[in-house]
Amino acid sequence: MIQATTPRAQQGSLSAEELHKMNAYWRAANYLSVGQIYLLDNPLLKEPLKLEHVKPRLLGHWGTTPGLNFIYVHFNRIIKKYDLNSIYIAGPGHGGPGLVANTYLEGTYSEYYPNVSQDAAGMKRLFKQFSFPRGIPSHVAPETPGSIHEGGELGYAVSHAYGAAFDNPDLLVCCVVGDGEAETGPLATAWHSNKFLNPATDGVVLPILHLNGYKIANPTVLSRISHEELESLFVGYGYKPYFVEGSEPEAMHQLMAGTLDTVIEEIKAIQHDARVNGNTKRPQWPIIILRSPKGWTGPKEVDGKKTEDFWRSHQVPFAELASKPDHIKLLEDWMKSYKPEELFDENGKLIDELAELAPKGHRRMGDNPHANGGILLRDLKMPDFQDYAVEVTHPGTTNAEATRVMGQFLRDVMRRNQQSRNFRIVGPDETASNRWGDVFEATDRTWMDETYPYDDHLSPDGRVMEMLSEHTCQGWLEGYLLTGRHGFFSCYEAFIHLVDSMFNQHAKWLESCRHIPWRRPIASLNYLLTSHVWRQDHNGFSHQDPGFIDHVVNKKASVIRVYLPPDANTLLSVTDHCLRSRHYVNVVVAGKQPALQYLDMDAAIKHCTAGVGIWEWASNDQNSEPDVVMACCGDIPTLETLAAVDLLRQNFPELKVRVVNVVDLMKLQPETEHPHGLNDKDFDSIFTPDKPVIFAYHGYPWLIHRLTYRRTNHKNLHVRGYKEEGTTSTPFDMVVRNDMDRFHLVMDVIDRVPGLQYIGAHVKQKLHDKLVEHVHYISKYGDDLPEVRDWKWPYSGGAQPETPSETKSTDAADEGGTVRSGAPAKK
Amino acid sequence: MIQATTPRAQQGSLSAEELHKMNAYWRAANYLSVGQIYLLDNPLLKEPLKLEHVKPRLLGHWGTTPGLNFIYVHFNRIIKKYDLNSIYIAGPGHGGPGLVANTYLEGTYSEYYPNVSQDAAGMKRLFKQFSFPRGIPSHVAPETPGSIHEGGELGYAVSHAYGAAFDNPDLLVCCVVGDGEAETGPLATAWHSNKFLNPATDGVVLPILHLNGYKIANPTVLSRISHEELESLFVGYGYKPYFVEGSEPEAMHQLMAGTLDTVIEEIKAIQHDARVNGNTKRPQWPIIILRSPKGWTGPKEVDGKKTEDFWRSHQVPFAELASKPDHIKLLEDWMKSYKPEELFDENGKLIDELAELAPKGHRRMGDNPHANGGILLRDLKMPDFQDYAVEVTHPGTTNAEATRVMGQFLRDVMRRNQQSRNFRIVGPDETASNRWGDVFEATDRTWMDETYPYDDHLSPDGRVMEMLSEHTCQGWLEGYLLTGRHGFFSCYEAFIHLVDSMFNQHAKWLESCRHIPWRRPIASLNYLLTSHVWRQDHNGFSHQDPGFIDHVVNKKASVIRVYLPPDANTLLSVTDHCLRSRHYVNVVVAGKQPALQYLDMDAAIKHCTAGVGIWEWASNDQNSEPDVVMACCGDIPTLETLAAVDLLRQNFPELKVRVVNVVDLMKLQPETEHPHGLNDKDFDSIFTPDKPVIFAYHGYPWLIHRLTYRRTNHKNLHVRGYKEEGTTSTPFDMVVRNDMDRFHLVMDVIDRVPGLQYIGAHVKQKLHDKLVEHVHYISKYGDDLPEVRDWKWPYSGGAQPETPSETKSTDAADEGGTVRSGAPAKK
Repeated sequence: MIQATTPRAQQGSLSAEELHKMNAYWRAANYLSVGQIYLLDNPLLKEPLKLEHVKPRLLGHWGTTPGLNFIYVHFNRIIKKYDLNSIYIAGPGHGGPGLVANTYLEGTYSEYYPNVSQDAAGMKRLFKQFSFPRGIPSHVAPETPGSIHEGGELGYAVSHAYGAAFDNPDLLVCCVVGDGEAETGPLATAWHSNKFLNPATDGVVLPILHLNGYKIANPTVLSRISHEELESLFVGYGYKPYFVEGSEPEAMHQLMAGTLDTVIEEIKAIQHDARVNGNTKRPQWPIIILRSPKGWTGPKEVDGKKTEDFWRSHQVPFAELASKPDHIKLLEDWMKSYKPEELFDENGKLIDELAELAPKGHRRMGDNPHANGGILLRDLKMPDFQDYAVEVTHPGTTNAEATRVMGQFLRDVMRRNQQSRNFRIVGPDETASNRWGDVFEATDRTWMDETYPYDDHLSPDGRVMEMLSEHTCQGWLEGYLLTGRHGFFSCYEAFIHLVDSMFNQHAKWLESCRHIPWRRPIASLNYLLTSHVWRQDHNGFSHQDPGFIDHVVNKKASVIRVYLPPDANTLLSVTDHCLRSRHYVNVVVAGKQPALQYLDMDAAIKHCTAGVGIWEWASNDQNSEPDVVMACCGDIPTLETLAAVDLLRQNFPELKVRVVNVVDLMKLQPETEHPHGLNDKDFDSIFTPDKPVIFAYHGYPWLIHRLTYRRTNHKNLHVRGYKEEGTTSTPFDMVVRNDMDRFHLVMDVIDRVPGLQYIGAHVKQKLHDKLVEHVHYISKYGDDLPEVRDWKWPYSGGAQPETPSETKSTDAADEGGTVRSGAPAKK
Repeated sequence: MIQATTPRAQQGSLSAEELHKMNAYWRAANYLSVGQIYLLDNPLLKEPLKLEHVKPRLLGHWGTTPGLNFIYVHFNRIIKKYDLNSIYIAGPGHGGPGLVANTYLEGTYSEYYPNVSQDAAGMKRLFKQFSFPRGIPSHVAPETPGSIHEGGELGYAVSHAYGAAFDNPDLLVCCVVGDGEAETGPLATAWHSNKFLNPATDGVVLPILHLNGYKIANPTVLSRISHEELESLFVGYGYKPYFVEGSEPEAMHQLMAGTLDTVIEEIKAIQHDARVNGNTKRPQWPIIILRSPKGWTGPKEVDGKKTEDFWRSHQVPFAELASKPDHIKLLEDWMKSYKPEELFDENGKLIDELAELAPKGHRRMGDNPHANGGILLRDLKMPDFQDYAVEVTHPGTTNAEATRVMGQFLRDVMRRNQQSRNFRIVGPDETASNRWGDVFEATDRTWMDETYPYDDHLSPDGRVMEMLSEHTCQGWLEGYLLTGRHGFFSCYEAFIHLVDSMFNQHAKWLESCRHIPWRRPIASLNYLLTSHVWRQDHNGFSHQDPGFIDHVVNKKASVIRVYLPPDANTLLSVTDHCLRSRHYVNVVVAGKQPALQYLDMDAAIKHCTAGVGIWEWASNDQNSEPDVVMACCGDIPTLETLAAVDLLRQNFPELKVRVVNVVDLMKLQPETEHPHGLNDKDFDSIFTPDKPVIFAYHGYPWLIHRLTYRRTNHKNLHVRGYKEEGTTSTPFDMVVRNDMDRFHLVMDVIDRVPGLQYIGAHVKQKLHDKLVEHVHYISKYGDDLPEVRDWKWPYSGGAQPETPSETKSTDAADEGGTVRSGAPAKK
């Protein structure tokens, strides 16, 4: 039942002393915030402020900071009053000085960074380090205790907050959303996350929409629509809005305190109703709408121009201190308006009667373990992935759907961790489409809204989270991982670009954390990209884009991994590895259609462990140098390569062909560039120093060149992959349309192997004719030529029966470190 | 004033005959839609349906299609009744069969594609071509007449619709939004576009939220929240919702007709009030919420499973026609339920009494010229960009802010086209920050909401569109360009990744249109990327990412262009070029900070025309081979390169140094890869076939390798650029932190020029010491060493005074086609 007329705000009942102390604490936080932005020295203003005390370049954002500080001190109060377990997500992450100031006041900061002590010397360091070379960022960064959210790129505060709250029934996430951020798309839809939060088993998000009215140089949309529209909007989003509006500090403290008390009682009642009474209906969760002036308590005017409560407060309200001497006075007056002498003792330490306002230990929001999720992270209970193996007695002869097999494995991961509640799957309504449907034997889709009897696996308890918003899925998963849990994201390959920028920010967060000793590694962010570029028969050009891999490999090698397993057993092995890995982004690309299987489980494990290897069973260069290397990476390229090898054998039985398959893309980079990179010796022993290499690749071909341009044999590398072609729909014949088919691969060999051009001329003509026949058949029947469609690897397992003198399999060690996957044994 | 209780729906007053005809027209559209999805032959079902009449692979999306068809026939009616000028944006673009069917019924399709004639033979082609090899895509694609919106990647229907409506006062955009798409972030915030639409001078968007309840395998969020929440949500978004709900066709026709009549009258009243009475208040625009069954009129059940009004209708409701003979019967019964014999005559043509329901000529939504914007496109009236030139008497000695100068030019572009109303600027609240502030002398920011007296350039008439949503900015601009107008998007470089995927889709649209003769070229989509990676002093790691360029160059060369002008005059020349160009995406990267200027206007024009060239005035290799090529691309790399050249001259006066600057990045690619690419001869003459090349680049260094790996001299190419480093904030010293500083560049030369290692050893030590001093100074004072910060190019213009024997400037023609920018003349 929707509350028709929502309450505006509740009057609080703070005693005069409480009110005075809270306001003083807020003044202290504001003082420290201004100090960080402006001062190099003279932190307590014990001597008259001079130009040399001020930083030469002034950076940072004041505008949002006093509001963030206001909320922090009020959260401190209710944390103590109700013994809450809370973390603070600062959507306006550029208000870094506020979060740093508060974690300093509560003592956390000095515990994490003892050099920034709670005295005058420490305060001086606190000020100087802010946005200063070799200091700390101006944003709420990984370096900031208590943070899981940077807020530099806006849009993800709410989805991160919900991600943190899922499966943390005891947690209350304070989520401050700036009215600038509220204009972004990802945030505008993330409000609907309340449809996926179960009050019985999840924690709660208390969103505080902070209307301070302005962005960089503009009013915000939500601050200028009518009160009625604003209220309707949030009622429509499913919340119960409480308005706390004003600018007079004492009145605002009372309003905020009273409203927070009301809201906490309401949350407790909702949770009680769900947990004790078993009410499973989605409640109307409270939201606070805080309207306060931008740059609150800052200078009202600067040089005669409106500053407080205006966009001029957004960054540094005034900067020309060297050229305008009265600005020094303005700064001094501003800072002294907080009366630091009443707040800090002689040594620069916060006076005890204020210090005791903060919670203690892990109840401090800066020291809450949920904000350093690696501390809480526990390994998943893992079934043995080998139990899900697809039987492969002869390589390339039987079909399986790789992602369906992966789904069976994930189903049991889900089952084994049902009790610990630390594993979720997310995706934009594609779990079934991507053939992970077996997970629904173990769990449902999360759903807190109305259901009908014929609905399919929807329940408040479901652990598969589907919303048609890649942004929300990504934000939820990030929040979930950052607070110490595990997950997997499945997505259509083309549309994962929607979260390019979110991936960027998460990868940067991970990379930064690697340099912060107190930050513990978290579980990796795992993507399965499927419905990939080679299988977009029914959708066409808009659904074709393999470029996410290119985007990912621009990020720091220490945190990114890319896998393209060619079949089901290799996908199982990779999946197991990803779920056990820590602090990476793992990108796994795999098809969902029925496709040929190549490696039995033993061979798959060996191959995935090596990451790249010669497929002996498909090669006929044993004990000799190959004439050509046929390399492949990705399931469809592997299929076409093997079919090409078959054609080569039929037409050129004497030709020595080596087949190389790449599962771990980063093996191609030099070891100096990526920890997985092969050294040059191993690379050369696999790809040869001087033979033609025909490389069939899943994505844009130049990525392979980029990864290998320093390799000895790069000049002989010829790559085929996906090409952008803007002609009409390309159903059925993506491979042919991109010239990555078996026929073109063979023609490449004929063109590039010395001596083959002449004897191969008639073969080229034959292949060309076959290709024309194939294309014609497709146009007529809408399907591949049966001999193409139904092709299987026609040779028996193991090495080559055709050339008995070379059947002895070489041992890996014989090859100077080259790793060769063993031929799949017959079972 | 918000309408408190919004109307549910209006009963219509269609006569029995009207109703019968409209329903028949709808049946015809539905029949043709099913036919496209299923049939190869027997289009009019004149013989019993057999398996061989059915396509071997069934692709396409039925679920949304009947709803799209329903809306289309109702729009036809009101277009005729009110003589409306309308286009149709199908958010659920995968409902392609519906739009194709309707444009076929109204006659447009056969006019554009005469082969698909309005008879049985044409209908057979219509059916076969759909989602068939060499046929048409299953989505509403560029090939579909009347479309400006593909709808493959969901989220942009509303922002595209508003973009189309801006400055088209006569246009009414019918914008259908699926309830799946409504869950995406970009769509969730695009509803707020109504705050930027001026009823006096813009057209109108009529959104129709189509609640058909399900996505691929899931209910939708908005279809399962309460009526009250849904209504509140849209009232909160600023709309007046009308609900049309049901499944019984006759009742639904009446409801839809009555509601549309009401809504059109209301829109006309709003427009009259604004245009005649001068009411400038934002109105409460109507929205229609249409709740109808998914797969409406399709099979209720298939194999005993609920299909109509459920997610099983999403794609093809049943497919196993070969293995389940009763499915043939099911399909035949389904198609015959539309009674084709009543709809089409003996020859397969729509009967006249139905055909006359469609509007005529350009009033047909398939033939509205706004949906083929190139037809309406007129050149901008352009001021002469040379009038804005910054004076450069000596290269590298005076400062200017490049983007501020660009802003002056854009101000006058804005002024000259004020009357034609065909130019807008968009950006996420960064126009002033990016130093285009001078445009506010010519226009305001678009703003339809409350204003205060102290607000800064806000008005309903403003032509600068700022919302903190890159998605919405991009969507607006795309819609504006696709309907034949011009624009420029300015954005922080790092955050343009937010629209990676939108860029993808737009680039694909442009590329597809190049192959469709009746689609005319539109104005280019122009990006200014500034606040770039080298100038993120105050923000840090989250704001650093130059990878959008990498993303862009993955798209088809025919539609993408990338420019990195090094100073203000080159930026002016590039800007002029971009605004005159057609059918590209132009990415321009330029700094906004005060920076050294190098080229006077004549030199800038020559340099930009060539795209890459030797800077004679900075080189001392005249009439001889250089010992080293110092190449640079981007403003900061150019500065550091020139400072390095200065150090080289001081330390190695005999060394022959050639300075090459790249403005047009695609010059680096081979001419076979990009139309701008240099041929190998020209490339070798600039970069030499065998000398060391030290290349300082704006972005990730490997992009330069990727673009040049086929060039003769690639093995001698050493690139410095941006590296991902996840340590703490890097204010002030981004260049040093990335080793792209002048000192490292000189050390690279010493390491790579034969013979220099020995004599250069002491110089390396000296430079190393200076670097340490510099870093130390930065850490202490928060600013660059003055000699670094204040460095200027110390040599007089023209060639080298130090080596008088080589001062004669060589003519470009002497260099075998090498383009050399002339030395800036003294004025």
